[in-house]
Amino acid sequence: MSLALMGRARLDNLTKPRGSLGRLEDLALRLFLIQGREPGVDPARIYTVAGDHGVAARGVSLFPQEVTRQMVANFLSGGAAVNVLAEVAGVEHFVVDAGCAGPQFDPHPALIRNRIAPGTADISVGPAMIEEECLEALLLGADLAEKAAKAGIRALGAGDMGIANTTPSTALYCALLDLDPAEVAGPGTGLDRAGVGRKAGIVAQALEANAAAVAGRDPLAVLAALGGLEIACLAGLVLGGAACGLVVCLDGFISTAAYAAARAICPRVSGYCVLSHASAEPGHALAVERLGLEPVLDLGMRLGEGTGAALVLPVLRAAAAVFNRMASFADAGVSESA
Amino acid sequence: MSLALMGRARLDNLTKPRGSLGRLEDLALRLFLIQGREPGVDPARIYTVAGDHGVAARGVSLFPQEVTRQMVANFLSGGAAVNVLAEVAGVEHFVVDAGCAGPQFDPHPALIRNRIAPGTADISVGPAMIEEECLEALLLGADLAEKAAKAGIRALGAGDMGIANTTPSTALYCALLDLDPAEVAGPGTGLDRAGVGRKAGIVAQALEANAAAVAGRDPLAVLAALGGLEIACLAGLVLGGAACGLVVCLDGFISTAAYAAARAICPRVSGYCVLSHASAEPGHALAVERLGLEPVLDLGMRLGEGTGAALVLPVLRAAAAVFNRMASFADAGVSESA
Repeated sequence: MSLALMGRARLDNLTKPRGSLGRLEDLALRLFLIQGREPGVDPARIYTVAGDHGVAARGVSLFPQEVTRQMVANFLSGGAAVNVLAEVAGVEHFVVDAGCAGPQFDPHPALIRNRIAPGTADISVGPAMIEEECLEALLLGADLAEKAAKAGIRALGAGDMGIANTTPSTALYCALLDLDPAEVAGPGTGLDRAGVGRKAGIVAQALEANAAAVAGRDPLAVLAALGGLEIACLAGLVLGGAACGLVVCLDGFISTAAYAAARAICPRVSGYCVLSHASAEPGHALAVERLGLEPVLDLGMRLGEGTGAALVLPVLRAAAAVFNRMASFADAGVSESA
Repeated sequence: MSLALMGRARLDNLTKPRGSLGRLEDLALRLFLIQGREPGVDPARIYTVAGDHGVAARGVSLFPQEVTRQMVANFLSGGAAVNVLAEVAGVEHFVVDAGCAGPQFDPHPALIRNRIAPGTADISVGPAMIEEECLEALLLGADLAEKAAKAGIRALGAGDMGIANTTPSTALYCALLDLDPAEVAGPGTGLDRAGVGRKAGIVAQALEANAAAVAGRDPLAVLAALGGLEIACLAGLVLGGAACGLVVCLDGFISTAAYAAARAICPRVSGYCVLSHASAEPGHALAVERLGLEPVLDLGMRLGEGTGAALVLPVLRAAAAVFNRMASFADAGVSESA
């Protein structure tokens, strides 16, 4: 019997009407297919990968660029949303400096200092990175996944921090999924309508300025041209997580853009990823549909950091527990349906 | 400043773009308004209230009536979905025999033995209960809420078990919310299309057989005529929970029907209740809309027992933690938006 049939048979024999736990059963089956044994997500770890973006200078975010590093400091002192949510969920949390601007951070037990460059170049006038930097960021992410797997981690959360990073993410969606900047561009941290229009224009400029990379359709070249250091690192985390047989919880708009790049590099990553939630960023739904993903939660969130992953991990934990611990009809002496 | 403005101001000063945690912020504010101090849901307790239904004899469920008591036994031995999910969520779980058929259950530390009658009468030919029984069930629920409050519980989950209980719930929705049986009746544990049609017909018969109670619009009389002992007990749990200032997590189709009755008795219960999830039972969406509720989760579940409540409690816990523990912009030295 195939693993899928074994898992389905097990779920159908548990003391509940068939299929009555809906998505929870699908998630349990997904975990079982990934892990090939008693499914589970614990221990789980969220990486919040930080990077800066040259395009921030174009005024695409309401927040100044310095907020990226201020938020890294906030993560390290435990005051950000992802800290609180990870702690409540019982999930490890690490911060990764893949490409922040400004001086190097001091060492900290929760900080992985692997800055590849102090931010990217402005994508509206040329490539964000050279391909070597992009590859280095991908390998950093893959290495983080492998280190986690070696430490016994079973599920990863892929979080981001980077002022202005909805702009490169929008550009990546357009290039990788044949979408239009005006369809995908959204308010990010809170742009008004005029701001969103300007942002769509800047994304269009980025696609134009990097037209050769976009036309070439080589995912690594596209990611280098339009991505970000944290985005490329997250793409590597997806690739490495899948390669190590980990469950990878995609977070929101940025994390899904990283997934789009990872999937373009290796389509088989799809079997290992769970989309935590539907972002309130309007273009997310369109990208999610093109990518064939189905968000688990829909709470109107648009924060990133790994906050969605921190909320979905307890749902996955619950799904695994249903699979592993519920009684069967035979065990419990419960009559089956007609 | 009003409590609502105080809560909103606090949320807006936390280190995240304003409103970017979406529903989580709304839920945090709701908890703060209910509790008037540092919000929280712990300790939380789920009651799974069980009862039998005379209308089961009409073949409205795929499962035989004996499954109600078999499932009570399964709850007590820890093998049901609600046990597993409550345990994973770190939530207390009690089973209540408000009206099961058959011999009394043996004592058990997790069982509250308060059977009011050994099931209801068939609603398709007359009233389910006499009003005194219904009142007794309501008071039982209110007493359970009060006992929980005295034990320090801050949030309740309102779960049900009762073979055939989507039928009385459907009848209650029709009577209390002016809906049509054909619109609300659904497959329950898995009826086919013909079965759903028969079930709608039986609900129409129930409304006809209890026409005087329905026309009178006295919610207690309607609940006695068309409800169930577990449903009336859950309505009492909602009323008592609100009276004690507890957060009440409604579960799915049955629990929401109990809420509809409780709200008809006292509209102010609405401020204390959170609808855990959107049931896959098709009529639920219609009832939910009429009741002005907004489900937190939508996982295609249709099991009852309190399984939805067990999944939403970690989300509420996360919402409370955001409110209580995140750093403000000033605390963390993070620049605010333009």
